[in-house]
Amino acid sequence: MTHTLAISGGVGGAKLALGLARTLEPDALTIVANTGDDFDHLGLRICPDLDTVMYTLADLSNRELGWGLAGETWQFLEALAALGGETWFRLGDRDLATHIRRRQLLDEGHSLSSATGILCEQLGVAHPVWPMTDQSVPTTVHLKEGVDLSFQHYFVRDRCEPTVSGFTFAGVDRAEPSVGLRQALTRPDLGAVVICPSNPFVSVDPVLAIPEVADLMRDAAAPVIAVSPIIGGEALKGPAAKMMRELGVPNTATAVAQHYGDLLDGFVIDETDRALETELSAVVPTIVTNTVMVTLEDRIRLAQACLRFSESLGTHRQ
Amino acid sequence: MTHTLAISGGVGGAKLALGLARTLEPDALTIVANTGDDFDHLGLRICPDLDTVMYTLADLSNRELGWGLAGETWQFLEALAALGGETWFRLGDRDLATHIRRRQLLDEGHSLSSATGILCEQLGVAHPVWPMTDQSVPTTVHLKEGVDLSFQHYFVRDRCEPTVSGFTFAGVDRAEPSVGLRQALTRPDLGAVVICPSNPFVSVDPVLAIPEVADLMRDAAAPVIAVSPIIGGEALKGPAAKMMRELGVPNTATAVAQHYGDLLDGFVIDETDRALETELSAVVPTIVTNTVMVTLEDRIRLAQACLRFSESLGTHRQ
Repeated sequence: MTHTLAISGGVGGAKLALGLARTLEPDALTIVANTGDDFDHLGLRICPDLDTVMYTLADLSNRELGWGLAGETWQFLEALAALGGETWFRLGDRDLATHIRRRQLLDEGHSLSSATGILCEQLGVAHPVWPMTDQSVPTTVHLKEGVDLSFQHYFVRDRCEPTVSGFTFAGVDRAEPSVGLRQALTRPDLGAVVICPSNPFVSVDPVLAIPEVADLMRDAAAPVIAVSPIIGGEALKGPAAKMMRELGVPNTATAVAQHYGDLLDGFVIDETDRALETELSAVVPTIVTNTVMVTLEDRIRLAQACLRFSESLGTHRQ
Repeated sequence: MTHTLAISGGVGGAKLALGLARTLEPDALTIVANTGDDFDHLGLRICPDLDTVMYTLADLSNRELGWGLAGETWQFLEALAALGGETWFRLGDRDLATHIRRRQLLDEGHSLSSATGILCEQLGVAHPVWPMTDQSVPTTVHLKEGVDLSFQHYFVRDRCEPTVSGFTFAGVDRAEPSVGLRQALTRPDLGAVVICPSNPFVSVDPVLAIPEVADLMRDAAAPVIAVSPIIGGEALKGPAAKMMRELGVPNTATAVAQHYGDLLDGFVIDETDRALETELSAVVPTIVTNTVMVTLEDRIRLAQACLRFSESLGTHRQ
């Protein structure tokens, strides 16, 4: 049995991570989440992608909202508004428990990796979930006009409305991959690296920008495959396509594959983009399947397609 | 118009503070709350008496529970329990907003006094509410048997069950009265110092233990009066009578007056204790009235009785 490493951003990535978790035993899968969009807010450490992955795997995620916890309530935020506090970032009452507990664990000296492990254990998440790094690597969004924004100000407060010109991840040059990320990448039995359908610029690039990570991926025993987050020129969720247009990149699955470049050994696109198969196959081995994950079965089916694809690429490689 | 200073612990004290606030204009009343039972919990600064006073004056207090906020919910605590967090101290979802906001203000460099002022303003509390001090003066409860307890472990977690032998307020020797407490005590127009019906040992003694405070009270222009928290040998709420029994002090209103000693210029007891009037009057001027505050009218009536009593003592004094 080989090992699989999944690299995930938020919602879309977490869906595929769940599919993989329902397919693979806990000791056969490592899930690493982007932390480039983490930030400190109200004295708490907010880790949107880590929590989305954790809540999704714990089957606690809020399907109506697409983020946060099921059965969430907003009494805290309502009372905070009355106190003149900042309420643009929607912290639910139940979600607050995660953040208070994380703050406490970090204050006690736990690394983010260790705190995440403890939270996952308490939530009954059996598969190992790791932050990409224990260091803080906050994303700055550079704008065509006006001053730079911190990621959550761009993403949540300003609803991705400003026109972007690029992204930087402060301190990433000095960041180290988390123990879980490094160990997964250097396992001799690594069979697949799956880059989930997450935003290439602000969810996956932060992971790849950590020194060594891209090199370790290129040197890894396993093929690296990515699932395109762009389907028919749009992202199912989030600003990926809008960012591509603003960055002067075609908003196509092909451009996503080109963005990852020689890192990729395989690429997965949606049926909608079947017309791109030929041009893509000239660049990187590509499969076409249904990548829109509505049901749990969709998630599992896509996970299995990715694993079969990786296996075929691995065999081919040897 | 003279100025009134009220010294309050939690629930009982806050009731009289509200009666005073409904009787006196904001510039004619200063309310100082005990902070000896403050503690750090879950990374937050918990100030039970300050918050009880604040919520009571804002008409936000929970009448069923006798503490916390009206319309409170407990989603945060429920989720925290699932995460293995400490839930013995009941922090409600709405109450959390106060604590997150206070933590943020303290982290920004605000003193507890300043943070309290900002919270009060946001809650629409017009009368000035001050902590007794900006320094941390945590109460330790010494036990007849076994190791000392921090106050909230004794009070909330262990439900006041252990037998006490005494109390100390760590660091009180180096504490300074808050600006509001000092200013009120040194006002030439101070007409009344009202020690509300709060626990003498753990709500009022911490205030009196701050260097200068007792001396400033003795030197103040105004008479110092106290309302007995002991009625018919019992406290309406809290462990005051139980503590007196355990400390070997008679659990009577008379013993409360003796506890405050020469600090007092006047004492207020309940109708229930009318039989004690003669023995008390030999020690300190004493009035008998209804001190059980069930309705808002009860609070206002007792406040007015205290103010009239102070005025008569003041006139008598000159």
